[in-house]
Amino acid sequence: MEGFDVVQLAHAEILTPNPEGTLWFFTELLGLEVSARDGNSVYLRAYEDWYHHTLKITEAKEAGLGHIAWRTASPEALKRRVEALEASGLGKGWIEGDLGHGPAYQFVTPDGHRMELLFEVEYYEAPPEKRSKLKNRPSRRPLRGVPVRRLDHVNCLCSEVTPNRRFFEEVLGFKLREQKVRGEGEELGAWLSVSPLVHEIGLMRDATGSKGRFHHIAFWYGYPQHLMDLADLCMEYDVRIEAGPGKHGTTQAYFMYVFEPGGTRVELFGDTGYLIFDPTWKTVVWDVTNVNDLEKSTIWFGGQLPETFYTYGTPPIAKGVAF
Amino acid sequence: MEGFDVVQLAHAEILTPNPEGTLWFFTELLGLEVSARDGNSVYLRAYEDWYHHTLKITEAKEAGLGHIAWRTASPEALKRRVEALEASGLGKGWIEGDLGHGPAYQFVTPDGHRMELLFEVEYYEAPPEKRSKLKNRPSRRPLRGVPVRRLDHVNCLCSEVTPNRRFFEEVLGFKLREQKVRGEGEELGAWLSVSPLVHEIGLMRDATGSKGRFHHIAFWYGYPQHLMDLADLCMEYDVRIEAGPGKHGTTQAYFMYVFEPGGTRVELFGDTGYLIFDPTWKTVVWDVTNVNDLEKSTIWFGGQLPETFYTYGTPPIAKGVAF
Amino acid sequence: MEGFDVVQLAHAEILTPNPEGTLWFFTELLGLEVSARDGNSVYLRAYEDWYHHTLKITEAKEAGLGHIAWRTASPEALKRRVEALEASGLGKGWIEGDLGHGPAYQFVTPDGHRMELLFEVEYYEAPPEKRSKLKNRPSRRPLRGVPVRRLDHVNCLCSEVTPNRRFFEEVLGFKLREQKVRGEGEELGAWLSVSPLVHEIGLMRDATGSKGRFHHIAFWYGYPQHLMDLADLCMEYDVRIEAGPGKHGTTQAYFMYVFEPGGTRVELFGDTGYLIFDPTWKTVVWDVTNVNDLEKSTIWFGGQLPETFYTYGTPPIAKGVAF
Amino acid sequence: MEGFDVVQLAHAEILTPNPEGTLWFFTELLGLEVSARDGNSVYLRAYEDWYHHTLKITEAKEAGLGHIAWRTASPEALKRRVEALEASGLGKGWIEGDLGHGPAYQFVTPDGHRMELLFEVEYYEAPPEKRSKLKNRPSRRPLRGVPVRRLDHVNCLCSEVTPNRRFFEEVLGFKLREQKVRGEGEELGAWLSVSPLVHEIGLMRDATGSKGRFHHIAFWYGYPQHLMDLADLCMEYDVRIEAGPGKHGTTQAYFMYVFEPGGTRVELFGDTGYLIFDPTWKTVVWDVTNVNDLEKSTIWFGGQLPETFYTYGTPPIAKGVAF
Repeated sequence: MEGFDVVQLAHAEILTPNPEGTLWFFTELLGLEVSARDGNSVYLRAYEDWYHHTLKITEAKEAGLGHIAWRTASPEALKRRVEALEASGLGKGWIEGDLGHGPAYQFVTPDGHRMELLFEVEYYEAPPEKRSKLKNRPSRRPLRGVPVRRLDHVNCLCSEVTPNRRFFEEVLGFKLREQKVRGEGEELGAWLSVSPLVHEIGLMRDATGSKGRFHHIAFWYGYPQHLMDLADLCMEYDVRIEAGPGKHGTTQAYFMYVFEPGGTRVELFGDTGYLIFDPTWKTVVWDVTNVNDLEKSTIWFGGQLPETFYTYGTPPIAKGVAF
Repeated sequence: MEGFDVVQLAHAEILTPNPEGTLWFFTELLGLEVSARDGNSVYLRAYEDWYHHTLKITEAKEAGLGHIAWRTASPEALKRRVEALEASGLGKGWIEGDLGHGPAYQFVTPDGHRMELLFEVEYYEAPPEKRSKLKNRPSRRPLRGVPVRRLDHVNCLCSEVTPNRRFFEEVLGFKLREQKVRGEGEELGAWLSVSPLVHEIGLMRDATGSKGRFHHIAFWYGYPQHLMDLADLCMEYDVRIEAGPGKHGTTQAYFMYVFEPGGTRVELFGDTGYLIFDPTWKTVVWDVTNVNDLEKSTIWFGGQLPETFYTYGTPPIAKGVAF
Repeated sequence: MEGFDVVQLAHAEILTPNPEGTLWFFTELLGLEVSARDGNSVYLRAYEDWYHHTLKITEAKEAGLGHIAWRTASPEALKRRVEALEASGLGKGWIEGDLGHGPAYQFVTPDGHRMELLFEVEYYEAPPEKRSKLKNRPSRRPLRGVPVRRLDHVNCLCSEVTPNRRFFEEVLGFKLREQKVRGEGEELGAWLSVSPLVHEIGLMRDATGSKGRFHHIAFWYGYPQHLMDLADLCMEYDVRIEAGPGKHGTTQAYFMYVFEPGGTRVELFGDTGYLIFDPTWKTVVWDVTNVNDLEKSTIWFGGQLPETFYTYGTPPIAKGVAF
Repeated sequence: MEGFDVVQLAHAEILTPNPEGTLWFFTELLGLEVSARDGNSVYLRAYEDWYHHTLKITEAKEAGLGHIAWRTASPEALKRRVEALEASGLGKGWIEGDLGHGPAYQFVTPDGHRMELLFEVEYYEAPPEKRSKLKNRPSRRPLRGVPVRRLDHVNCLCSEVTPNRRFFEEVLGFKLREQKVRGEGEELGAWLSVSPLVHEIGLMRDATGSKGRFHHIAFWYGYPQHLMDLADLCMEYDVRIEAGPGKHGTTQAYFMYVFEPGGTRVELFGDTGYLIFDPTWKTVVWDVTNVNDLEKSTIWFGGQLPETFYTYGTPPIAKGVAF
């Protein structure tokens, strides 16, 4: 690819009112490893994630997005993007860093989602008993649950998709890979990336009209059998499955959406057969005023998505919303 | 990623003394589709390949590599790389194009493998009866064999790995992702890429000391079950399996190597769990003087590789070499 | 097991108003092989079915069940069961046989489904070009579609389950493996077998109250990946999926239900992990007045079943019912 | 099937000089659950095994077979088989029972392997926290390792196959499903069953000529992906893989053989697509004097079996044999 300044989803922080349950979910079911604990936060990574952590869990009164962090290609690339962010009026300023990474520049999306840009990262160093004999694997595959292999992407709900999508394109340099529209007037969803992945970030219209809510965080589970095994385990261990296993038309994801015990929606995501290497890729546009696109974009096969998929986000709007 | 000029393996041409057998293998077993025929050549693509073709089969007296074509990020990137190739003394000059693409610049590797650089490509347009209802799939999944999804990579045998590896790094801008060495003196293999894939090209030392031979072309088959199904079918239909199914340590490929009926080695390649998004990736070096590296790099699990894996290439050295 | 007289589902005949479409479905998508044609009928088998045929397709004005044939353990077992059938008043008498088998005794279930008992069968003899190198495989794995491996079971709709279930237990010697009830009064479904399979026949209450209709025929597809591949192909080739892929609680089937182009529902069935070897097995009873049983019996995971699952059978009740 | 008196492999006991390592292997890697401990023994079962235990691990000076227990169809069937055993001269007499089952009749094979016949079994009763919501699953799927689903079969080495095979056929009523011979004179292997499974017991010639040794115990792992995951974990956790993953021609097993830390060979076994329902099944005979049979019977695809496969059994012949 020619010149992305932002090159990677580095990590995400989610807030949870049920830290014990959330931690159980990520460590015992998805096999994540704890890298560190600090105050009300726990830092985790999947066994093939290379950095100090890719997930930060922080105790809070209600479920929600803490922040999303992106890594740049170089210090120069970071500088260029910070200038663009400052010019956009959405920049917030520098922080010194956190466990696992150096200085980070904070900003918000037009909808208000908190994000950071950074370049300096700390690599995970496995202690001897967690070292893999595979030199291209940063730590040994765990024996717990059905261990996911890496952080994949995030998805944000937006009061309006268009200004947020344009922000990622124009200010941060993402490419628009797929898009869902209703005729010419309405943009329902956008999938953007800075790599051959179809998306590192998805943007979806919030059916409740709320601003700045989080839809889901996604980990890559490996192969379809792993998703079926996870579905079986979710049923056994009372983890609520919202939808799936099934296959989306958009992104070709072989997906399942579940709610971790703190209330954040988590996607178990797979199928990286569809990767975009074409430097002149033309956005795939699904127009739901067209019958084929309407029927095939959301669900290629599997059960239909429930209403909550379009209305539930974190933080939940009303207290006591069941997930 | 910051600035690759070469961004993608566009297609490869292989030579075959048995065009009918070779065509049967790629269409009936691997499910490739024929895009065009011209003279002694047939042009094919996998059902998720977007361009006119990714494989060209040309009748010849013996098996061998025709050429390998790379696509650049832009016309400017093409111009930059052509200048670098001319400066390297390995450039050969322009051709007007071929079916499916525009002007291409021909060059050779230090070992003599024929290659091309190009930017202008023709996209495959499926006729109505081959159109997929999935808008991000360029043609309908075929009902033949176990259809592979896309061209993945190529692997070249080299009389010496080092000068060839340096050529890809310095003249073409590839990054060295993994490497196999024997202590400090000898480079046995190199895996290079211009994307998060671990390699679009592998370079391996030719144990016979020959120059410029081809080791294999690899298609991405999808999921492990598909590889097992292909192994079953190879046994049923007399396609010789050289090695696998098994898992390499290097690249983490879940692989199988077979000989298509014309004599070219074909790898059925999978596992894209391991993708490199880190812009400051440090080459993973396997040193076979170290016991762990020796044992785990070639085969992580599965049967060992036979001698032929290191000595057989195309063209075969001696007439009548069995494959 | 101690003494079953009936030991196996031998074959089933379905009627189709669209013989060309039905034949395409079974041969090109499910990879069945044609053994013979005779009059308005085509005889087929999956590549690991040992007998002359396991499926007979017969042209007719509307979709429906032709008949279901069961094989006995021996000529003596056949004699014993015929006597029991005659005593039951549901016996119809002997026919000389059909392509692929010897004399058969015709009978009906209390609901009126046509069935046959037979012992003498003709084995499939593969011609040289279809012979497998695997001596325990009666013919070579085909290169078409996602080939299913064997006929698995049948499912009949009943105006009332109980008398039909008792008939299979008392007259034919089947064992009741699982059962779905609503409290003490109502029997909603029964799964019976004469082997470690959970069922060779399922009986389900017809929500329309009709008598003697057919619900589905099921082939065993192999592994979960094959079911996903079939789902993908059904979407590509306009085969309507009614439900699935998903997992039933009852029988633990990892299922998908589709309508073949003639209108018969076909189940693609898998998971033989759950086999019953216990000679003193106690029927697993799911009582839908209990919340856990209600929620888990029909769908363990995956989308819910549509209304049609309970109302559509063959023959369809009204002309022009869409499937 | 018509009348088997012996109907099921009930459990097996293995001896281990490394009880802690052996227990780790079965519980943490294969996900077995501990039912009870008694003296030097631990009793375990896979999560879909219905009885009190299917595996008993007993501490001993060296690895070896404790005993193998078979369940009969009824008390009468047990009585009949005991009479036959007494007549054969290989009966040893009754024991009162053990944890998990009632009175058992002890006997030996002609080669001397210790076995038991029993009818009365105790069912596993899951405590509330291990109860599954699936009523046809005796306990919840565990979160440890890649949990196997049930005990599958055992395999015994024999100084001579023929008398042992005849013993199982004539005295116990097993059927010979597959057989490997060298021309007319020599029997190399026999696979026998009392159900549609191809074998509950395999008999193989001991290449060392020893009497009464044990070759392996096999658990059914589920689907091929699970075997690949197990292979990956074995490499990570220093469990030695002897052979596989690969596919046998005989039995069509998709197999892997590993040594548990006590020295007993364990097969991870799968593919129950091939089930025998035919009551007049003709034994599949592989004659290794025929080239096809020689090449395809042992390995259909995957790496070849090592020498140890034919010479290593438990107890090991010489002290200090590495496994």
